[in-house]
Amino acid sequence: MARHAFDCHLRWGDMDAYGHVNNVAFLSYLEEARVDMLFVHARDQGAERLADGVIVVRHEIDYRRPLSFRPEPVRIETWVTGIDNAAFRLAYDVRDGDVVYATAATTLAPFDLERQRLRRLLPEEKAVLARYLDEGTAAAT
Amino acid sequence: MARHAFDCHLRWGDMDAYGHVNNVAFLSYLEEARVDMLFVHARDQGAERLADGVIVVRHEIDYRRPLSFRPEPVRIETWVTGIDNAAFRLAYDVRDGDVVYATAATTLAPFDLERQRLRRLLPEEKAVLARYLDEGTAAAT
Amino acid sequence: MARHAFDCHLRWGDMDAYGHVNNVAFLSYLEEARVDMLFVHARDQGAERLADGVIVVRHEIDYRRPLSFRPEPVRIETWVTGIDNAAFRLAYDVRDGDVVYATAATTLAPFDLERQRLRRLLPEEKAVLARYLDEGTAAAT
Amino acid sequence: MARHAFDCHLRWGDMDAYGHVNNVAFLSYLEEARVDMLFVHARDQGAERLADGVIVVRHEIDYRRPLSFRPEPVRIETWVTGIDNAAFRLAYDVRDGDVVYATAATTLAPFDLERQRLRRLLPEEKAVLARYLDEGTAAAT
Repeated sequence: MARHAFDCHLRWGDMDAYGHVNNVAFLSYLEEARVDMLFVHARDQGAERLADGVIVVRHEIDYRRPLSFRPEPVRIETWVTGIDNAAFRLAYDVRDGDVVYATAATTLAPFDLERQRLRRLLPEEKAVLARYLDEGTAAAT
Repeated sequence: MARHAFDCHLRWGDMDAYGHVNNVAFLSYLEEARVDMLFVHARDQGAERLADGVIVVRHEIDYRRPLSFRPEPVRIETWVTGIDNAAFRLAYDVRDGDVVYATAATTLAPFDLERQRLRRLLPEEKAVLARYLDEGTAAAT
Repeated sequence: MARHAFDCHLRWGDMDAYGHVNNVAFLSYLEEARVDMLFVHARDQGAERLADGVIVVRHEIDYRRPLSFRPEPVRIETWVTGIDNAAFRLAYDVRDGDVVYATAATTLAPFDLERQRLRRLLPEEKAVLARYLDEGTAAAT
Repeated sequence: MARHAFDCHLRWGDMDAYGHVNNVAFLSYLEEARVDMLFVHARDQGAERLADGVIVVRHEIDYRRPLSFRPEPVRIETWVTGIDNAAFRLAYDVRDGDVVYATAATTLAPFDLERQRLRRLLPEEKAVLARYLDEGTAAAT
């Protein structure tokens, strides 16, 4: 089991009028971690169709502590907590070492953009996802 | 029990490279509905301190169908599903009539921005929130 | 000569850590005014290909006074200040009555998305744009 | 004369429905380069009040070629093209080596956030800005 690690650069503009990174911006951070895992790395491993279309079915996110802009990135660890025939589930931590800013989980479904419909996961896609599988942590969020 | 209704205008720029409103933009829509309910309407009803600071503790959101840009707003209905001493919980529908694009729930906590710490809900804030209370629907998402 | 008028709804999240609508968000407002003019209204008037692809060549924007979130929209007036064979130029005011928050100008070029290349304006597109033409104000920004 | 160099990470979500980085996102990139130069580096050099408040007076930006998401950052070079008593002017290139995606210029004014009014540049702020001064390139955009 490997967790995918992504160093996410904050933007000053991610802060809202309270002077904290806005709750919505955290969802962007998760998206960028996911894109790095599924579009960049999974593509190299034979799951290139995932990059052509994956839709978000559900998000859950818990905000643990406020984050303000700083030039250093935050680390986002992402792993797989479940693989079905037509969906899979990711979990994430947004952190600096032991300090956790947010934990989250996302259910995703592969989508055929051309035909505009959901499709099943291919065997090679399941194989790539399985490398990141850690079902025991499914209950983290 | 009244649901708060907010007509949320989409932006063309809310669409991502798939040509759909991006999953992250939906969280912005919820934020705007919440601001309208808590900062604009609740302020008029005696809960003006809520506008000075409320932090998001948790979001859950289920995406039901894709949405693309159009000039007409979507309707967001928001109601309260729980009120504790130092937190409360909202539920939302994003819809056009009977067509539901997303359902969501958010746990919020009042925050004292000046002292940078969580605080308890005031009695007048609980009273304003109670007007939107519908606990029976707590399980919607 | 008619100016196109668009009522642009602010979002609380458009504010930055200074508590003002961020300079970048104003560009989004201009984009929404432009989309309303070119994609929604021009489409109805026979210039439907503009909606399929227009790229921004240049922006100029002058920020006149700070704007903070409020539930009322700002009015954006847009008009055409020049029409060439393969480009056209818009000017805008972002205002509340006589109070002007920003003035701006954009040079745009029609783009053939399928072939990924610039194209010339069609006669019917020039005709639609000419309805908004007011060259005398080209120097506004 | 030194140019300030900032490696700006793109986000997948910066792309719009055309599949290109949206014109508005480029303004965010310039903001992040500016924040890195003025808030992070200038602060270290004795101009820490700039980080407390600088407002954008004017932007000009020319889009030279389309940019799509990729994991590698773009390089943004920023330098000073003019210093007045109560304003200064920056120029920027957004590039990959010799490939230029955009050039831009911004006029900024120091702002006293507490008193909500414009203020003059301090001598130490002018000294820090002067290190990046290259007036000869003022006409670049």
